[in-house]
This record gives sequence, structure tokens and C-alpha cells, in this order.
Amino acid sequence: MRIVDIQEKTVSIASDIRNAYIDFSKMTVSVLALHTDVIRDGRPVVGYGFNSNGRYAQGALLRERFIPRIMAADPKRLICKDENNLDPFRIWDVMMANEKPGGHGERSVAVGVVDMAVWDAVAKIEGKPLYRLLADRYRGGKADERVFVYAAGGYYYPGKELGELRVEMQGYLSMGYRVVKMKIGGAKFQEDIRRIECVLGLVGEGERLAVDANGRFDLPTAVAYGKAMARFGLRWYEEPVDPLDYASHAELARGYEGALATGENLFSFQDARNLLRHAGLRPDRDILQMDPALSYGLVEYLRMQEALKAQGWSPRRCIPHGGHQFALNLAAGLGLGGNESYPFVFAPFGGFADSTRIEDGYIGLPKTPGIGFEEKSKLIDLIRSLFG
Amino acid sequence: MRIVDIQEKTVSIASDIRNAYIDFSKMTVSVLALHTDVIRDGRPVVGYGFNSNGRYAQGALLRERFIPRIMAADPKRLICKDENNLDPFRIWDVMMANEKPGGHGERSVAVGVVDMAVWDAVAKIEGKPLYRLLADRYRGGKADERVFVYAAGGYYYPGKELGELRVEMQGYLSMGYRVVKMKIGGAKFQEDIRRIECVLGLVGEGERLAVDANGRFDLPTAVAYGKAMARFGLRWYEEPVDPLDYASHAELARGYEGALATGENLFSFQDARNLLRHAGLRPDRDILQMDPALSYGLVEYLRMQEALKAQGWSPRRCIPHGGHQFALNLAAGLGLGGNESYPFVFAPFGGFADSTRIEDGYIGLPKTPGIGFEEKSKLIDLIRSLFG
Repeated sequence: MRIVDIQEKTVSIASDIRNAYIDFSKMTVSVLALHTDVIRDGRPVVGYGFNSNGRYAQGALLRERFIPRIMAADPKRLICKDENNLDPFRIWDVMMANEKPGGHGERSVAVGVVDMAVWDAVAKIEGKPLYRLLADRYRGGKADERVFVYAAGGYYYPGKELGELRVEMQGYLSMGYRVVKMKIGGAKFQEDIRRIECVLGLVGEGERLAVDANGRFDLPTAVAYGKAMARFGLRWYEEPVDPLDYASHAELARGYEGALATGENLFSFQDARNLLRHAGLRPDRDILQMDPALSYGLVEYLRMQEALKAQGWSPRRCIPHGGHQFALNLAAGLGLGGNESYPFVFAPFGGFADSTRIEDGYIGLPKTPGIGFEEKSKLIDLIRSLFG
Repeated sequence: MRIVDIQEKTVSIASDIRNAYIDFSKMTVSVLALHTDVIRDGRPVVGYGFNSNGRYAQGALLRERFIPRIMAADPKRLICKDENNLDPFRIWDVMMANEKPGGHGERSVAVGVVDMAVWDAVAKIEGKPLYRLLADRYRGGKADERVFVYAAGGYYYPGKELGELRVEMQGYLSMGYRVVKMKIGGAKFQEDIRRIECVLGLVGEGERLAVDANGRFDLPTAVAYGKAMARFGLRWYEEPVDPLDYASHAELARGYEGALATGENLFSFQDARNLLRHAGLRPDRDILQMDPALSYGLVEYLRMQEALKAQGWSPRRCIPHGGHQFALNLAAGLGLGGNESYPFVFAPFGGFADSTRIEDGYIGLPKTPGIGFEEKSKLIDLIRSLFG
């Protein structure tokens, strides 16, 4: 068996939202199709992958470095020992040949896109949903049948702040979400506090609201927000400071009793391990949001899970960034704490299978082999239109 | 005044060398020309930039994100308040708009290429060599007239190990270098020790030999090498472990009394600051090798220098990776400890002005305005052939 072809395209996911750090008016993603010569249901198996929002498409790195390395490799170096499936770990090693250590950005996205397509193909070849395959391989067969999801949004609406914010949040609740997340740090302090109080008025309790500063604050500002928000008992306080400023996280964790969340802008096992080692985070409450689609894929995410375990963290503390079906499969298969969801943006890459519904803040997964893209009609239609 | 055009090209710097981590058979660099409408000596000023070896060309990121942002900006946002020159800091902010925090790799190279061209243009417009401009702006006018350089090489020669290694090292000494650096970690332990002893036999004392493991070792191996090499009194022991594994650096520094060196694979102020905070390095001996051409340019390198100062480090502890004229100007202008040099590889991007010679391990700089590319005939000929 072998990989016959790998195609990639860049697609716009521009939207008019902005967080405290960037706007998304020129945001793009890479989409990839990995064609094999394995026949299932009368057709060759094709795996699909894409990256999540926030870090731009990586077509050139895919075309110049990662796809050529795979296509130039002896096909035997890309498959399992018993030769009945692709081996994501061996493919990963082939991709990362002649890449120096350190500098984990951009290329981590390109590799993540390929890795997603590889796992989609592997699960299709094995005839199982990916979450079931992962549970069988890594969790003694035990999969979660439903996964906690929360609605990420709470954007700024210049000129019609609280009214639009309330409409947006009410929408999430009526869709079945129990926990919502909103942006902070894009307005003045007092206005942010008013916005939080407004949403709390809707959801009722702090446990149902998370806030996200997108790494914008310096330490004194982060501490000031923490002090002002302490009384709300929020679900978590996300990316208070620069994602690599471990010392400031540690300082903040010494004073803020509620949960902190971070990790969506750490793209390697080494960076995630540094977070655990140096950021003073607390395994009994804090949330880790590393996104496999941006950080060298599931192969690297499994290394992160090993590092977590070694430092006494449960996989339940992980709720990946990204809002895609890939991370949803990881959550159900590896027993993570949940998954992000963006109900209104980044379509059709964000979101879940058409047949699944949010119920009381949880969602199930379809039984189709692979990641389940074929169960999300707008996404699979787009993918098929890209690759003819 | 304004930027009229920015052109970029990818150039191969393939070579048959390999270190303990990668081979360089497909290595590329980006070269960039930044055209202004400022006239000096009867011609419009053009600044040139490129990235150093090891991390590949970044043409697509330049074309898709960084160059369009500059060209789309109001020209007034790119120049100094008194409107007589470009402002590298303002240009940097324009380039990094809509880039999320964290993930410092690849894009740090693209931004570094542009930043080099900007500083070349700024110094040409001011009519000074860059090192003199930097000394005037940041060091009260005091520039070093000569800079310590060392010859980096000491590659593996399969089948004819010690003989070829001796020839290579003898070549560096006869060119005027006093300190040489060789690779370790690409062979078995005992063979590496023999190779070190062979080169020590040539250079005479440990102070004249550095060794480079290119981040390949795990901690036990790094410690074992350190113990075996302690008696040699080497100049430094470079990249013993993964560049982001600060805890292992700290453990190694507790036991190895000689100097450690690292930093060439840390590409941001945040990563460099983490190294200073968490890696247990010693300001009285260890060497920091961050390379401005790979890490968001001189604008970011100045931030790193601030972080160093805040933690009690002298700029003399910095000897940048890369072997290019840009870092040589920074060394002379900011008072760094020296600069790397690759006498036999990465030409014509590596190396210094034709008129300058290595004498007793030091080199001077030409008086031409800018970085001095026009004083290196093979380089400027190549650059001009690329951009017509």
C-alpha cells in the first residue's frame, strides 16, 4: 500500500471579528487531500486535513518541504510493520527530517495539516471512527460517547456593545450550549467588567462563563483583571498574558484562585513541557488548550499527553483550541476534558457533524470511519470542490 | 520619502555538510531588495537583506503577509517623525499586525530578512556604516573597530575522519583564525573524543576550541560528554540539548564548569528571556548565540539586549550565529562578544568584506554606508543578478 498523491489548497476564512490581538479579515487555512491506493467500499481511501484558525495557511511550506519529503520516501518507510496501514509516526519522522530543533511556528501548522489527513486515512482504512481507533490504541477501548463543548465568541460590537453581545450569547444558549466564552482586553477595564456582568446576567452563574484576553495583558493589567473578576467565580480566565511568559503565569497563579487556561499558542511538545515546568499552573484546576491542528498534529499531541502524565496532570484538564472535528475525536478517544466550538465563525471548518446536536452542553460523534468530515455536508462539499 | 518596491527571491545554499541534526543538501535562503525613493550619490537607495543558513527561505510568507502589509501602509507610518529616514521599529509593527503571539519560527525568519534590508537602507540614507550608526544611537558613539570571529566547521568526513578534519582546521588557522569550532554528536562517543583530541593537538589549548552538538543529546548523554570533556578546558560546549529544554540546561550547568553556549534556535525576545530565566546559565561565562537574521531582525534583537541587561548580562556574552556581515555590524556597534564565521560554506552569504582580513582572530569592517554588501563582490554580484 502507498500514498499515491497529496494535494493542498489555500481557502479564505476571513471574518469581521477581532480579538484583543488581531483581526481575522485576511485569515486563511490550508486544506489537504492525501490519496492512497487502499480500496474501501469500492473506492480509494482519501484522508483530509486542514489547520484551525488564527495562524494562516501554510501552502508554501507544504509544497516546498513537507509533501516532497513524503513523496520522495520509500513507501515502505511510511507504513506499519505489518504493512496493513499508514504509520503516522513514521510519516512524521520523514516530514521532520532536515528540520532543526526549536522555532516551533508555521511549520508546526503545515505538519499538523498533513497529520490530520494521515489519521483520517488511517481510521478509514481500519474502518472505524478516529475516536474509536484512538480509544482502542491508547485507552483500552474506552471512548467517551459524548464530549463537553463550549461556545467561544463574545466579540466586540463597536457602537452596540451590550445589546449585540446579549443576542449572541442568547443564541448559544438556545443552541444547547451551557458554557460560553467571551473576549476581554479589547475595551477599557470598566467596560469589560460591564460586559462580563451582562453575560453573567444571562447564564446565571460564573461556572458557565469563561473569559479570554488573547495574551494581550502585561502582568499588572492581568493581575488587576484577576482581582476584579475573582468575585464572579468564572469557569476560566484564558491567555491572560503572552503565551510564552511562563514567569508571569506563575505570578498570576499565586494570586488568582480561579482556573487559568492557556496553550493554544504553544505549538510543540517542548513548549508545552515548559509551560508545565515553569508556569506555576495547577493540575487540580487549570486548563490546557494546545491545538493539535496547529502543533505538529496528533503525533506531537500524544507526546504532550505523556509530558502531562509525567507531571501529574489528567488528560481531563485538556480542552483543545480550534473547534474542529479532529480535536473532538481526540477528546472522545483520549478522554480529554472537552473541546472548543465556534458556532458562528470559521465555517465550514469549525463545527461538527450535521447529525449531531448540542444537548445540555455535550455533543456526540457519528459512527462513520475517519474523522467524520463526510458527515458534515458543507465541509465535504467544499473539500470535494477543491480537489475535483 | 517612501518605500517604492520590495522584491524577494529564493536562492539555494545547498552543501554536502551535515551536523548531528540535519543535512544541508536542500538548504535555501530568501534574498530581498527594498527600494526607496531617497537619492544618494545620484541613485535611489536600495537596502538588501537575507536570512542565515539552517531554516530555509521564506518567500511565501514574505509575499503573502509581510511585504503586502508594508506596501499597503500609509508611507508616513513607516518613517521617522522628522521624516528624514525609514523607522525600522514602525515598519516592524506594521509587519507584525494581525500576527498572534507565540509560535516564533519561520515568520521570524521572514521578518528578519526585511528588517536587515531596512537597516541597510537606513544606514545608507544616513551615509554611515551600520555599526557606526548603531554605536551612535545605542552606545554613545563608541564602536569596536575590530570584532572577534571564530571559524565554525569541524564537519564529519565519512571514511577519512581525522585526516580531513585536520586539513580543514589547519586551513582556518592559516587564514588567521585563533578559535575554531567543531561538530560533536554525529559519531560515537569515543570517536568524538578522538576527534576533539586531534584538533586540540593542532590548536594547542582548549581555550581555542569550541564544540557543537546541535541540540542532539538527551540529558544523560550531554552530561556524559560534559564529564569527558571537562579536562580539555574548551572555549564552549554548544547546544548540548534541545534548545527549548531549559531544565536540562540548568541541570547540565550545575555540573559542567566550563562555558555553555546556546540560543541560535530561539527566535524571539520571549524565548530568549525564558532562556535567561529558566536555563540556569551563568552570566560570568556562558555564551548567547541568538541570530538576528532568523529572529525578527535587529528590532527584536535590541529587545533581547534589554532583557539581558535586566538580568545582569553583558552584551559581551553574545556571539551571534550566522556568519554574516549584518551580525558583524551588530557586534561592532553594540559591543557584542564576537561573531560566528563559516569560511568554507554558505557562500556568498556568509563571510565578510573583500578588503578585510582575519588577523589574530579579529576582523575589521569597511567604511561604506550600510551593512557593507557592496564591499563583498561575489555577494553583491549575485544580489544584483537576482534583481536586475
